[in-house]
Amino acid sequence: MRAAVLRRPGGPEALRVEHVPEPSVGPGESLIDVSLSGINFDDLEQRSGTQPGLPLPTVLGLEAAGRRRTDGRRVVALLRRGGGYAEVVAARDAYTVEIPAGLDDAHAVGLFEQGGTAYGALLLAGRLRAGESVAVSAAAGGVGHLAVQLALALGASPVIGLASTPAKRRFVTALGADVALDPADPELADRLREAAGGIGVDVFVDSVGGAVASAGLAALAPFGRLVCLGWRPGPDAPAGTHPPAGTHPPGPVDPADAGVVAVTTAQLAHGSIGCAGFWMRHVVDHRDLLCRIADRLFALAAQGRLTVHVDRTVALHEVGAAHAAVAARATTGKVLVDVRREV
Amino acid sequence: MRAAVLRRPGGPEALRVEHVPEPSVGPGESLIDVSLSGINFDDLEQRSGTQPGLPLPTVLGLEAAGRRRTDGRRVVALLRRGGGYAEVVAARDAYTVEIPAGLDDAHAVGLFEQGGTAYGALLLAGRLRAGESVAVSAAAGGVGHLAVQLALALGASPVIGLASTPAKRRFVTALGADVALDPADPELADRLREAAGGIGVDVFVDSVGGAVASAGLAALAPFGRLVCLGWRPGPDAPAGTHPPAGTHPPGPVDPADAGVVAVTTAQLAHGSIGCAGFWMRHVVDHRDLLCRIADRLFALAAQGRLTVHVDRTVALHEVGAAHAAVAARATTGKVLVDVRREV
Repeated sequence: MRAAVLRRPGGPEALRVEHVPEPSVGPGESLIDVSLSGINFDDLEQRSGTQPGLPLPTVLGLEAAGRRRTDGRRVVALLRRGGGYAEVVAARDAYTVEIPAGLDDAHAVGLFEQGGTAYGALLLAGRLRAGESVAVSAAAGGVGHLAVQLALALGASPVIGLASTPAKRRFVTALGADVALDPADPELADRLREAAGGIGVDVFVDSVGGAVASAGLAALAPFGRLVCLGWRPGPDAPAGTHPPAGTHPPGPVDPADAGVVAVTTAQLAHGSIGCAGFWMRHVVDHRDLLCRIADRLFALAAQGRLTVHVDRTVALHEVGAAHAAVAARATTGKVLVDVRREV
Repeated sequence: MRAAVLRRPGGPEALRVEHVPEPSVGPGESLIDVSLSGINFDDLEQRSGTQPGLPLPTVLGLEAAGRRRTDGRRVVALLRRGGGYAEVVAARDAYTVEIPAGLDDAHAVGLFEQGGTAYGALLLAGRLRAGESVAVSAAAGGVGHLAVQLALALGASPVIGLASTPAKRRFVTALGADVALDPADPELADRLREAAGGIGVDVFVDSVGGAVASAGLAALAPFGRLVCLGWRPGPDAPAGTHPPAGTHPPGPVDPADAGVVAVTTAQLAHGSIGCAGFWMRHVVDHRDLLCRIADRLFALAAQGRLTVHVDRTVALHEVGAAHAAVAARATTGKVLVDVRREV
């Protein structure tokens, strides 16, 4: 089979298309003939070696859709040990669900992990109720653009998206967000409070950390919650991020990382506010919960209330270039890999 | 009128019964002929001078029940500037509610502030749902014993109470708690997880801080929440506590206070857990919310599902001795002052 193989850590050019043997399946695993796989920020870290300990050579890619070889059913799978950038992958049955008729593979890939993360942030960690205000950072990103739509579908109002460029902010308002803000605004906390009607934000979903998370905390209404999905390193931090939002265990976290924010119980009590974290692993490890969330997301997509925006779909030999675009924050929504396309 | 007056900060003996003029009412205030007032931990701090800036001489006491002089209705009031240890108090109408027929003054005093705090911790900050597990520290205390009962009434299961002596733990299980634990147990986090069925605790309501709060965080289930109501200083901290749970603004908080706990977004994300604070001020300042909560608590009391356990009811000249008992953690449940009793 063809696969984008990583033989040693490096830049985007370290990913090379090769012909390699099909993977073998272990107990509780099934082979999937992949149609589409997704690119995640975690993949970039694994490629560059920021997440240590990956046995090489390897095939990256943490999610894929396709047909299960045993029964020919269309399925989508989370791949905790990678393997998605290939024509065939061995996927754990516990992390695989069938794709309902009427849902395309692109939506299945875009929704299963990143939609699940948006769902977990808003409902499991954020405990959102209809009528509450929601703000989402990186709102034009893979998780963020789904969090904006899901918040709207759940009756949140107003919904505020943060995005770093005018084009991304237009994208965010086109999704239905009531307001789009620039996270670099020096008065970000004030802008957030104003946008939320003056009292403050009820649920702030953040995957940026640092100053954005701090502004989010400062902008919370009484009984509001900041939900942290991960963080990007500050300008002085070493390359790479340590987001815990993937399905695989993240690398060790340096608490001095500029993106990590510390809060005290005194601060939280004085504002009657909360700070929570969400890591998709805690969903993935509970099969019932994973299936329930997938069902809900797939149903919302079938109703047209949740749309995966695909920034681009690349061939295997273009995965390196797509990594570079993701690293440069030049993408909006989801980046997919069509593993069968050869040109 | 008679009142327990504080002329200068000091020990329990600094409270002396004197005859003083009745207070004058300002705009939005009404005189109440007090029947019962309550003793709170905050009063002890104000008496000892830990909370600076109190104009002296003064009358302490942050809550009182009695009859409103203008219309003779039975009311209960939160007194943000004190005044409860007296036969007459000027109370702000915005912080006063009528006591429904069938509810005695002792329950009204015990439920309005401390029941409101238990309610806010469990529902507003903790966002408890039926079927979730709850643990409560200081579960034999004024707030704690109501939090245990309220958690049970809301369908929480199991409900775990922490209390420092065998007698208090017997009291906690008599309230209906499934398990009572010793907060000094060196394996407290493990005991909490076991008591919650192995997965961990869903909502931990804490007013102790320090090692107890840290054990609570460690014992949380995925998507669990620690709710901080305040903290006691560690053994090396200066006398007094800095709880934010009162209705008045607390004194300045030293973040190095041994009772305050710091958490990072990395820690929260890795466990998919949350940490929130609750301060009753954020309820008191919203009249609708305050009335809604009082209605709910009074209705539960009328149904016999929420009972204020009165440790003792003292006369005005015994308030100092009652302060000493509260400071020594020698009380269980609520301590009341019968301002009319002369012997």
